[in-house]
Amino acid sequence: MEAFMEAEYIVGGHGSRKIKVLQEAFQHIDGEMYSDHYGSGETIEHFQRRMAEVLGKEAAIFFPSGTMSQQIALRIYCDQKGLKRVAYHPLCHIEIHEENTLKELHQIEAVLLGDKDRLIRLEDVQAIEGDIACLLLELPQREIGGQLPQYEELEAISAYCRERGIKLHLDGARLFEITPYYQKSAAEICSLFDSVYVSFYKGIGGIAGAILAGDEDMIKQSRVWKRRFGGDLIGLYPYILSAQYYYEQRINKMGIYYEQAKQLASLLNQCHGVRTLPEVPVSNMFHVYIERTPAEAEPILSRMTQQFGIGLTSYLNENSETGHCSFELSLGDRYETIPEDRLQSALIWLDEELRSHGPKR
Amino acid sequence: MEAFMEAEYIVGGHGSRKIKVLQEAFQHIDGEMYSDHYGSGETIEHFQRRMAEVLGKEAAIFFPSGTMSQQIALRIYCDQKGLKRVAYHPLCHIEIHEENTLKELHQIEAVLLGDKDRLIRLEDVQAIEGDIACLLLELPQREIGGQLPQYEELEAISAYCRERGIKLHLDGARLFEITPYYQKSAAEICSLFDSVYVSFYKGIGGIAGAILAGDEDMIKQSRVWKRRFGGDLIGLYPYILSAQYYYEQRINKMGIYYEQAKQLASLLNQCHGVRTLPEVPVSNMFHVYIERTPAEAEPILSRMTQQFGIGLTSYLNENSETGHCSFELSLGDRYETIPEDRLQSALIWLDEELRSHGPKR
Repeated sequence: MEAFMEAEYIVGGHGSRKIKVLQEAFQHIDGEMYSDHYGSGETIEHFQRRMAEVLGKEAAIFFPSGTMSQQIALRIYCDQKGLKRVAYHPLCHIEIHEENTLKELHQIEAVLLGDKDRLIRLEDVQAIEGDIACLLLELPQREIGGQLPQYEELEAISAYCRERGIKLHLDGARLFEITPYYQKSAAEICSLFDSVYVSFYKGIGGIAGAILAGDEDMIKQSRVWKRRFGGDLIGLYPYILSAQYYYEQRINKMGIYYEQAKQLASLLNQCHGVRTLPEVPVSNMFHVYIERTPAEAEPILSRMTQQFGIGLTSYLNENSETGHCSFELSLGDRYETIPEDRLQSALIWLDEELRSHGPKR
Repeated sequence: MEAFMEAEYIVGGHGSRKIKVLQEAFQHIDGEMYSDHYGSGETIEHFQRRMAEVLGKEAAIFFPSGTMSQQIALRIYCDQKGLKRVAYHPLCHIEIHEENTLKELHQIEAVLLGDKDRLIRLEDVQAIEGDIACLLLELPQREIGGQLPQYEELEAISAYCRERGIKLHLDGARLFEITPYYQKSAAEICSLFDSVYVSFYKGIGGIAGAILAGDEDMIKQSRVWKRRFGGDLIGLYPYILSAQYYYEQRINKMGIYYEQAKQLASLLNQCHGVRTLPEVPVSNMFHVYIERTPAEAEPILSRMTQQFGIGLTSYLNENSETGHCSFELSLGDRYETIPEDRLQSALIWLDEELRSHGPKR
C-alpha cells in the first residue's frame, strides 16, 4: 500500500529498519573495545551472562538467529534421548517459516499438536501417541494473533513433561512482551522450561540476533553446533551490542506497549466489521480482521492515511475461505507519537466508512 | 605473549579487531538507507550482483560465514548427484575447523586427498577410488603456509573434473590475495570452478561475512538452505556494508601485500635457524619456522619487541615431532607503517640472538 509509506504516523513498531538503528546504537560505544572472537571475549560473554541471569538459566549463548538456535536445541534433546521426534503447534515458526529444516538437516519428525486455530492444551500433549524427545511451545502463539494459555495450563504442561522425561523448550521470540500479562518475570516463566530462545529484534527492536539459554551442558553442546552451522562468527558484536543497547532502552516499556495494544484493540473493535484476535490482547501484538476483501479494504485504509496521516498496515492478507482480509499489529515506540485525537478521529472515520459502504459481496 | 600486545608496531594484519572497524565503515553511510530484509533489498542485492560480476559467476549470495556457505554448496552438489561423497585436502578448513559438520549435519563422506604436507595434485584426483560429487580446493592452502599449485595444474584438475562430471568448488577465503601471484583476475581463476566462496574479513579486513557464487540454479537452492541454517537474517547489513567499504579500500592493495610478504620472508630467511613456508610467498601469507622450542623462542621474541617495538607474533605453535615452533603471518595495512630501518635492525638482532644462543636441546 503506497499511501502507508507516506503516512505521517505509523501505528506499529519502533521505527523503520534503517541503517541509523545501527549507527545510533554504536554512537556512544568506545571504539577501542575489542570485538568478540569466535564466541569468546567480554563483549559476548558479558551479554550471555546477563541474559542467563535475566532468563534464570545456568548459561546462555548468543546466536545470529532464532532459527539456528532452536533447531539446535531440538537436535540436542533428540540426540540425548536417541529419539528423533518432537512436538509443537501446527503454526509455530519452525514449522512454517524454516523450509522444513528439521527433516532436511536433522531427520527429526514433528508431531503437530491440537488445532491450528487454537492454543495447545494439556490434553493435546497427553494425547500424543508414542514418546517424544521435546515439546516446543511458542509464547505468544504469533500466527493466531499472539494468544497465550492461562498460566496454570502452562504449569500443568510443564509438570506433565517433567514427569514423563519430555524436554520442554520455549520459543520465546516475544518473551519479554508477555511478562506484563502474566505478571511474572522472564525468569519465572522460563523456570517452567528446560531451555528458551529470545529474539532481540522484535519487542526489543535490535538489528538481529538471539539468545538460547538452558543448563550448562546443553549450552556447551550448543557451542559445538553453532560452529557446525557456521554461526560462530569471528565477530557477532554488531548484533550483540545493539541488542544490549535496545534492551536497556525498551525492556521496561513492555507494560506500556501492552496497555497501548489493549487500548488500540478496543478502539478497533468499535469499528463496524472489524475485530481483533485476541479481542483483548495479552501482549503488544494482535491481529486485525476486517470483513472486507483486500481489494475493498485497501482504498479505505489508503484514504484514512491520506486524510489523517495515520498508517495502520503496509499489507493485507486474504483469508482463503471468507476472502476477507487481516493484518498483524505489534505496538512499539511509534504508538505514543501519534496524537490521540488524530487516531480517534481516524478510527471514527473508518467506522463510518465501513458502516456506510457495505461489502460488495 | 604479553610483550606483543604492547608492541608499537605489529607486523601482520590490518589492525586490531576493535569496534571502531565497524564505526569507521558506517561513518559515511546514509542513516536513511534501509536494512536488507531477509535476503532482499538493494543493500544486499547490489553487493551480490557486484560480487557475481567480480567472480565471473551468474549469481552470488551473501552468507554470515564461509562455514555455512561451503557445506551448503557441497550438500547441493551431493543431492544433485544422489551421492554423498566429496573430496578435499586433509588440512582444509572444512575438515579441521568445522566440528565434523559434513558428517553430523549432512551424512556426507569426505575423501582426504594426497598428503597433508603438500598440495593436491592431478594424480591424487585421478587416484580417487569410486565416484565423488564434488572436489573442493582451498587456494591458497592455508595450513601449509598458503601454498598454491601451478596454474597449469589447476587447469588440468578443472578439465579432469569437468570431463568426469565432478563439481569443482573453490574455498577462496583468500582468493583476492592470490590474484597478484597468478597474474589473473578473480573471475579468471573462478572460471575453472563451478562455485566459489570468498571471505570479507581476511585480506579485505571487514567484520565477518562471505559470498558464495555460482550458477543461477545453485544460488537459488542456496537461498533455501541459508534459510534452513538460520543464516537468512532479517538484516545482514552490518557485515555487507562493511565488507563493501573495506573491499573498496583494499582490493587494489593485494599486490602490495604480496610484495611485502616476499620482502619480509626474504629478511626472515636470512635469520639463523629461521625459515618460511613457502620460502618465497605466493600471496600475502606464509608460515615462519624457528628452530627453537616455544619456551626458547618466546623470551627472544619478547626482547625483540621490547628493544625495537616490533611485534612479530602473538603465539607460537609447537611441532609435535621436532618440538620447534612456528607461527603464521598475513600481511596487511600495518606492515607499511613500520619504519624500514627499525624492522631491519630488529631482524639483524634476531639473527645474532639466534646465532649466539644455540638451541638448548
